[in-house]
Amino acid sequence: MKELEEKILKEGHALSENILKVDSFINHQVDPVLMQQIGDAFAGHFGNKGITKVVTIESSGIAPALMTALSLNVPMIILKKQPSKVLNDNLLQTVVTSFTKGTSYELTLSHQFIQENDNVLIIDDFLANGCALLGLIDIVKESGATLEGAGIVIEKGFQNGGQKIRDMGVRLESLAIVDSMTDDSLTFRD
Amino acid sequence: MKELEEKILKEGHALSENILKVDSFINHQVDPVLMQQIGDAFAGHFGNKGITKVVTIESSGIAPALMTALSLNVPMIILKKQPSKVLNDNLLQTVVTSFTKGTSYELTLSHQFIQENDNVLIIDDFLANGCALLGLIDIVKESGATLEGAGIVIEKGFQNGGQKIRDMGVRLESLAIVDSMTDDSLTFRD
Repeated sequence: MKELEEKILKEGHALSENILKVDSFINHQVDPVLMQQIGDAFAGHFGNKGITKVVTIESSGIAPALMTALSLNVPMIILKKQPSKVLNDNLLQTVVTSFTKGTSYELTLSHQFIQENDNVLIIDDFLANGCALLGLIDIVKESGATLEGAGIVIEKGFQNGGQKIRDMGVRLESLAIVDSMTDDSLTFRD
Repeated sequence: MKELEEKILKEGHALSENILKVDSFINHQVDPVLMQQIGDAFAGHFGNKGITKVVTIESSGIAPALMTALSLNVPMIILKKQPSKVLNDNLLQTVVTSFTKGTSYELTLSHQFIQENDNVLIIDDFLANGCALLGLIDIVKESGATLEGAGIVIEKGFQNGGQKIRDMGVRLESLAIVDSMTDDSLTFRD
């Protein structure tokens, strides 16, 4: 997606070979107009798949997922990173371990919101080694719904998450794939 | 806001005298069309205040804040509940203690995103005893920006947060104020 790649080039900073700082428009300050374009782009990719629910994980996935859900005119489901005390009936859960941070958390879904007849689109902001996305895929499969695919705002193409997910046969659409980055250059996959 | 009150009456459940479960349209499953109406309503209340930034707290505040920011055509800032390892320069921080949950967390703002010449609107999903909102107000004041007001989706009028904030002279607009709730009835403030 051209507008996104231009914004990454203009405002993104490679803090190291692995960390891309995009906190001026994705995950601390958020550009709502760019998010609307991102939502429309995902809706364009998956608009013919009969999507009934958009699913994401708190908290940076919420903005792109909400705009995608608005564009597709379907509900969005937010998976929390810890079991809620209020959502206590009929729960599906899976544990996600973040290799980057060395921590684990539990994803929780109230089953009533994703059922067997749903066609689900997963949206998230970043894909690196794929731990969070694999957790989302697990819990959607556990619900019995059909997983139609996943949309990622920025994929780090130099980490192996994208390959793992595509090898599983999941349709994955990343709006920008960064293949390499250094202090002063950043290369996108065509 | 009539559409919101109707949705609360139709889909909300009082789990106790204090807990209103609205997870089918606000904080687990999210209705993007209702969120757009909510964003437009806040933009209507504060549209003449020269707002330059909309600020919220992860994660349930993000959806209404994003739609408000889109409607006002300004950036949204998400305050995380713990210090980020990546946002490490020029940080403003404040500690919030949740009386309901008995826990504390740190709110972090990268100063570059809210500066002295900004006019800030705070948006959040719930207001009960006001701890989170007081933390947001603290950190906006610490930034030197002008706080133009706060917009809340659902205020629990039977808890004292709303009164505290209004007594501070902060303009507070709540789209629905629940004055009392029991198993089978729920009363809104006019």
